[in-house]
Amino acid sequence: DIFAYWQSLLAEENNATPLANVFWKDKKLLITAGPTFEDLDPVRFLGNRSSGKMGFAIAEQAQKLGAQVTLIAGPVNLPTPQGVERIDVRSARQMFAAVQQCYAQNAIFISAAAVADFALAQSSEQKIKKQAGQEGLTLELVKNPDIVAWVAEQKPKPFVVGFAAETQNVIGYAQDKLQRKKLDMICANQVGENLGFESDENRLTLITAGVEKALTTSSKSQQAVELLDYIAEVIEAS
Amino acid sequence: DIFAYWQSLLAEENNATPLANVFWKDKKLLITAGPTFEDLDPVRFLGNRSSGKMGFAIAEQAQKLGAQVTLIAGPVNLPTPQGVERIDVRSARQMFAAVQQCYAQNAIFISAAAVADFALAQSSEQKIKKQAGQEGLTLELVKNPDIVAWVAEQKPKPFVVGFAAETQNVIGYAQDKLQRKKLDMICANQVGENLGFESDENRLTLITAGVEKALTTSSKSQQAVELLDYIAEVIEAS
Repeated sequence: DIFAYWQSLLAEENNATPLANVFWKDKKLLITAGPTFEDLDPVRFLGNRSSGKMGFAIAEQAQKLGAQVTLIAGPVNLPTPQGVERIDVRSARQMFAAVQQCYAQNAIFISAAAVADFALAQSSEQKIKKQAGQEGLTLELVKNPDIVAWVAEQKPKPFVVGFAAETQNVIGYAQDKLQRKKLDMICANQVGENLGFESDENRLTLITAGVEKALTTSSKSQQAVELLDYIAEVIEAS
Repeated sequence: DIFAYWQSLLAEENNATPLANVFWKDKKLLITAGPTFEDLDPVRFLGNRSSGKMGFAIAEQAQKLGAQVTLIAGPVNLPTPQGVERIDVRSARQMFAAVQQCYAQNAIFISAAAVADFALAQSSEQKIKKQAGQEGLTLELVKNPDIVAWVAEQKPKPFVVGFAAETQNVIGYAQDKLQRKKLDMICANQVGENLGFESDENRLTLITAGVEKALTTSSKSQQAVELLDYIAEVIEAS
């Protein structure tokens, strides 16, 4: 029929499946992206390595599929994808506050940000000065809020997709995180070997309870399209 | 005379004094710029806030004045100024190694980088995993090499210009640093109020033993030109 034909043309144009084209139209999607930086003082901070490229690629591709995208971004040097609403934050606490304000209006939440696990117990308003002869410094850190786990605990809650970036045993850690944080899906992300943080390519394994779908290495845009396809497939099948 | 007239035209064109135009021609200048990032593990790092814009502006303006510029840059998102030799580093130790290799071939050393004072005693090759129920984390840091002080101790040594970025009592701290580290000049840099780190404007106070020259707030390019003018003036007068 005409509709299916038009859908297949569209799918070819934007590289997503016909199902994804239908599914994402006008869907409300919340994404976090980039690192968080936890300030010790006005000069020093504790940061995570993350370019934000994966989350921004998901935002861009979802918007192209017709989704209404809100992107909460940590400190990154990336332009806002066209048609995407962007909220800039710096710390994990600021990101948490923005997510708390936005999550309930969204059907799907993708937590692609590399949120710092720990922050300084108290950050200093003035630059901390070294003392003469001071050879060491001890930093006492406290746990940051677990944003993705918090969203997954809400009732009602959006469909929650997490990320697990690891340098080793990435599938094992990701499966554990999926269960422990009660996520709907997790994207296992092997970091290193020119993949993951700060690179343009990625190789995600998409994991739901009982099923693993390994993508082949490709651009972050292509990984984003395949992730959006798979989210549509999983939600429509449930 | 013709030469003075030509000099004044040149000076007008590049906005530097005639003296600076003569002084910097073929002069070898080493600059450090940007922050250093000290890795805790492949994902987490301790960083300094610094866009690198001030150091890059000095490199660009000095090259325009005819200097042979080597720029040792920490992790920044800035294009290399035309005609400048750039060496990229990440940690303070890497920056120190690059400076040790380069300093002796340069007549002037400008340390504009915001080098981390402390690094992890030992960084982990794998991502450090949180333990279940872990509420805090203690980081034991050790002092990093003091790059600018090390260069100032060498014999022979280049003319050494340091930077002091402070949120309070900036002139006092800068004068103390000038004397303690035996620098030839220090640029006191008030951070905050839309000035300094990550901003496009600056207001430096140039300090040598006994003399303070306060610049008015302007673009980092203009501050760079005035700094290069003043270095030429101080060296030629000595």
